[in-house]
Amino acid sequence: MSGKFITFEGLDGSGKTTIIWKVIEFLNQTVMKDQFIYTREPGGNRISEAIREIILSKQNTAMDARTEALLYAAARRQHLVETVLPALDAGQLVLSDRYVDSSLVYQGAGREIGMQKIAAINEFATDGLTPDLTIYFEVEPQVGLARIQQNRQDEVNRLDEEQIDFYERVHSGYLKLAQENPNRIKVVDASRSIEEVKAEVLAIIKEFLGLKG
Amino acid sequence: MSGKFITFEGLDGSGKTTIIWKVIEFLNQTVMKDQFIYTREPGGNRISEAIREIILSKQNTAMDARTEALLYAAARRQHLVETVLPALDAGQLVLSDRYVDSSLVYQGAGREIGMQKIAAINEFATDGLTPDLTIYFEVEPQVGLARIQQNRQDEVNRLDEEQIDFYERVHSGYLKLAQENPNRIKVVDASRSIEEVKAEVLAIIKEFLGLKG
Repeated sequence: MSGKFITFEGLDGSGKTTIIWKVIEFLNQTVMKDQFIYTREPGGNRISEAIREIILSKQNTAMDARTEALLYAAARRQHLVETVLPALDAGQLVLSDRYVDSSLVYQGAGREIGMQKIAAINEFATDGLTPDLTIYFEVEPQVGLARIQQNRQDEVNRLDEEQIDFYERVHSGYLKLAQENPNRIKVVDASRSIEEVKAEVLAIIKEFLGLKG
Repeated sequence: MSGKFITFEGLDGSGKTTIIWKVIEFLNQTVMKDQFIYTREPGGNRISEAIREIILSKQNTAMDARTEALLYAAARRQHLVETVLPALDAGQLVLSDRYVDSSLVYQGAGREIGMQKIAAINEFATDGLTPDLTIYFEVEPQVGLARIQQNRQDEVNRLDEEQIDFYERVHSGYLKLAQENPNRIKVVDASRSIEEVKAEVLAIIKEFLGLKG
């Protein structure tokens, strides 16, 4: 396996996805053009999409937190096998919007199952595949939630209905992960303007890829 | 939790389900009437049934073995939360056609993921809930497969298409589990006639429940 694996993490409303598109725009103007893929779970494969449908269905209100965590791990496994691993094996750069860290903080910390327990089932799901670089978009939960409220058009799913307490636990989880993995996880202050965040993220990626500024 | 939990395990074609119905018939004639439930995963709950549909769909040929194992664990978790635990909490006897042992041998041994790894994700799914008694219906793989061929009407799913090698690994897995858990797992020679197997299983259950012969 010779490719590189970069993941993007952060609270809903952290501006993560907006910046990923700026990164893609940038990479398309460099030598990396055609040598990278952008993906996000469930990644468009038939099996993971079907799993995602079960997780997000508003009818499945009886879903236990551990069932949900196992379903996320299952969807992740299939996405890895069908999309991420083939690209890495072909030497490509893989950019992923969320990965294991999201489960650690959302299910482990947010739903209070425990980050260690979620790490164990994801170790099984990924066979230990860890990103080479993770960019974490740091915002306070209130900032993220306010941005979500502002942007929302119609789509509401079960996760969005959770309360501020939940987001605070998720936020603390992210800070803990960042502290424990200082080499892998780069923390970017995402409370600033899109232009400022973009500039910092591109600088990190250029350095990681050895591209000239 | 004051109820008791009995599981039934064995290869496809071991005659397990036929005997379970004999057990139910017997229990209905005893003081246990209305004090027990019979269930099998996915157990009729909405979420586990939806998961089961993904696992068994013939269209999902790309399914990775670990994805499948995580999906079985997810369906088991939900079945446990919605059906098994409430019954045990109410002091009932729960009879389950298959449980964790099936995943250990089918995914762990059969699909060669490893029984230890499957045990870990199922420990997460069940929070360590182990049956009080397991009746294992022992038949040689050839005997089980021959019975399946004979009984089959129309229903064919992905699992049934696996080869004899797979069933031999599953069979070895069961024997290993029985050897490692002699107190919990009672091995019944299921190559005999239904009447003989029924008599032995009822004797085991009467003794376990402290019912007079």
